Amino acid sequence: MERSIGIGLLGAGTVGGTLVSRLIGEVDAIAAKTGLTFDVRKVGVRNLDRDRPFQVTEGLLTDRLVEVIEDPTVELVVEVMGGLDPAGDLILAALDAGKPVVSANKELIAARGPELIAAAERSGVPLLFEAAVGGAIPIIRPLSETLAGEKIDRVVGIVNGTTNFILTKMSEHGTTYIDALGQAQDLGYAEPDPTADVSGEDAAAKAAILASLAFGTWVGIGDVYYEGIEEVTAVDISFAAEFGYAVKLVGVCERTDAGVNARVHPAMIPVEHPLASIRGATNAIFIEGPAIDSLLFAGPGAGGDPTATAVLGDMIDAARETLAGAQVAPRIRFSPGEIIDFSDISTEWYMRLLVDDKPGVLGKIATGFGDAGVSIRSVWQEGGELEASLIVVTHPAAERAQREALSSLRAIDEVIDVGSVIRVLGDGK
Amino acid sequence: MERSIGIGLLGAGTVGGTLVSRLIGEVDAIAAKTGLTFDVRKVGVRNLDRDRPFQVTEGLLTDRLVEVIEDPTVELVVEVMGGLDPAGDLILAALDAGKPVVSANKELIAARGPELIAAAERSGVPLLFEAAVGGAIPIIRPLSETLAGEKIDRVVGIVNGTTNFILTKMSEHGTTYIDALGQAQDLGYAEPDPTADVSGEDAAAKAAILASLAFGTWVGIGDVYYEGIEEVTAVDISFAAEFGYAVKLVGVCERTDAGVNARVHPAMIPVEHPLASIRGATNAIFIEGPAIDSLLFAGPGAGGDPTATAVLGDMIDAARETLAGAQVAPRIRFSPGEIIDFSDISTEWYMRLLVDDKPGVLGKIATGFGDAGVSIRSVWQEGGELEASLIVVTHPAAERAQREALSSLRAIDEVIDVGSVIRVLGDGK
Repeated sequence: MERSIGIGLLGAGTVGGTLVSRLIGEVDAIAAKTGLTFDVRKVGVRNLDRDRPFQVTEGLLTDRLVEVIEDPTVELVVEVMGGLDPAGDLILAALDAGKPVVSANKELIAARGPELIAAAERSGVPLLFEAAVGGAIPIIRPLSETLAGEKIDRVVGIVNGTTNFILTKMSEHGTTYIDALGQAQDLGYAEPDPTADVSGEDAAAKAAILASLAFGTWVGIGDVYYEGIEEVTAVDISFAAEFGYAVKLVGVCERTDAGVNARVHPAMIPVEHPLASIRGATNAIFIEGPAIDSLLFAGPGAGGDPTATAVLGDMIDAARETLAGAQVAPRIRFSPGEIIDFSDISTEWYMRLLVDDKPGVLGKIATGFGDAGVSIRSVWQEGGELEASLIVVTHPAAERAQREALSSLRAIDEVIDVGSVIRVLGDGK
Repeated sequence: MERSIGIGLLGAGTVGGTLVSRLIGEVDAIAAKTGLTFDVRKVGVRNLDRDRPFQVTEGLLTDRLVEVIEDPTVELVVEVMGGLDPAGDLILAALDAGKPVVSANKELIAARGPELIAAAERSGVPLLFEAAVGGAIPIIRPLSETLAGEKIDRVVGIVNGTTNFILTKMSEHGTTYIDALGQAQDLGYAEPDPTADVSGEDAAAKAAILASLAFGTWVGIGDVYYEGIEEVTAVDISFAAEFGYAVKLVGVCERTDAGVNARVHPAMIPVEHPLASIRGATNAIFIEGPAIDSLLFAGPGAGGDPTATAVLGDMIDAARETLAGAQVAPRIRFSPGEIIDFSDISTEWYMRLLVDDKPGVLGKIATGFGDAGVSIRSVWQEGGELEASLIVVTHPAAERAQREALSSLRAIDEVIDVGSVIRVLGDGK
């Protein structure tokens, strides 16, 4: 007994094209496993001349996007166009019309999650977004269902494949940042304009979603401090390796008694930590809680095929719930909670300074840290002719104090340059 | 708006006790995140004198197990007693009475899965068993939902923590099997009677469930070939390490054009494979498919707390679906399919032989392999005074042919003993 579900597709780029061709090519396999077939009834694209994937029959295409929602034969709306507008209002309209929605749009969920989730709840239809974080890695559903009964303390994720590819190249081949970025662009891992990836903005949207689901307190994209990998050098990565660390761009979501926090920044991760060995464009997410200890999920974090798998899984799930004919309750509820400002979070810093190799300079630097209330864990100096590289690793202190120390170091005459600042991933305790 | 769900608990051992204390201790956190509270209305134990966890109020306990099902205030049955009987008939009765069931019982699901799933489908209620494989690692739901649209080719899992603990000890400290087993028993990782773990039987039940969900063709426990780690020696593990392999007890579930297969045996895994670095009692599951490439899930595979987290996640999910008030469709459908006998599967063997160090012996051995149609990949000989250890690694050949070669080797006079046979984990292609 098979049931056909009418699909309205918003967006026909890489993911949309892959999805449509798989719905056609794997129709029998999907039907055998789920009892469902998916019938694409309408495909909305922004530009009919440009965004036309070969797989779509002429009559199905429209650039009047709202037609996709309004088509009475569309029972399920799949949004793979990305961006805030017009995706957000279209999804809202679909939910208000009582149509379940599957979206791969991390930016939108991180920006307008509560509003969209509330609309889904009002209409009693599912809004699913497994593909928004970690590509094909099942993480949204595990966090909101399997682990709903766990008091998760921390989630640390490598959730941007582009930057992990670049950092891996820099680490394994000593490639410069610029050359590694060029290679990532040549291979299609990075966009011609790589800003969203390398600045940490993409990862910040994902960290916001992970934190919200893990802690049950909504963390919006605006709550997430982020910095990217543009300042990380092969020299830092090489120093990190000597000290037993790998450098990764991580999203860190933490819960303490005071509240929750999410942030994205390059971090030095002990080589024995499972995240340290995640190479190339792979994504990985590490979840810690009192009962589960720690769980690791890893896999391809992007690309048409993995993302289409995640979207398809959501489509099957949404269809199954909808066909049950009931008002479905949301999978997770969000309660108000305190979001801690990053400057109040305790961090450990690795800092590389270029200094004049003169007597007394180390004393001045130590005083700068001490005055800010930051205590130094270790110092390592490599002398040049006249200048020396000074590596300082601090003990944990409030991010605010670390920054204060940094400012005072910059004011010291003998400090020629502060090359890099990379936070050390602590044990989260 | 909170809704209280009446729970009937079957079994009050480690998992049941942990679950009840968490339902009490974390009631507010669970309610905030899910809108649900769970109220234990009946706890069934086999022996009132023996199986009495301290947390349960006197009036709730019964040794008339069917009362747990029949109690009209019980809306959801949670089975954590384990074993085939009486758990199987009790679950069947609960499902037939239209009560959703959450079970952690891998043995039962692997033995009577289709019958129980059919009963759940008839009544339109969920039967969930996330805790049956991999403890707190979300794997059942990802396989049956998130990855429902993926044509999974292979699942390889380290799904028994006891044996992985033992093999890790043997590998890292050169401990003998017997000593490592003793340590596992002292630490509570192994039962006083460790047979189910060390024989591979426990892993076989889990492999049956993984294969069934991954491929959509039911693979029962009786379809799974298994062998354990009793014959693995520290010497083999040390040889394996020299050749770039780690020795792990794995469940391998494969799909080929001819059908599906699931099996459990010790395997040599290339050290660069993610499963090779899974240490101690940790479980890990590696999933391969054309679109996802590969996904890795790792975490604590057993223990009261992780298992209780998985059970709790299922309880929340089942309650949510049930409260929607609809007949729920099963998450996955099973289609008839060919199950390939293990003897027809292509395997690669590592074999360690003790031979008389005489001229011509290698020729006889090579002939034995050749006559069986098995081609040798590499031979390595370490001479003693009169006897030599001979390590042979074969190219892939049908398991049947490998066994035939083994028989013929045993018939050679100069072959004193066949110390070990360990299969090499190939690339699944």
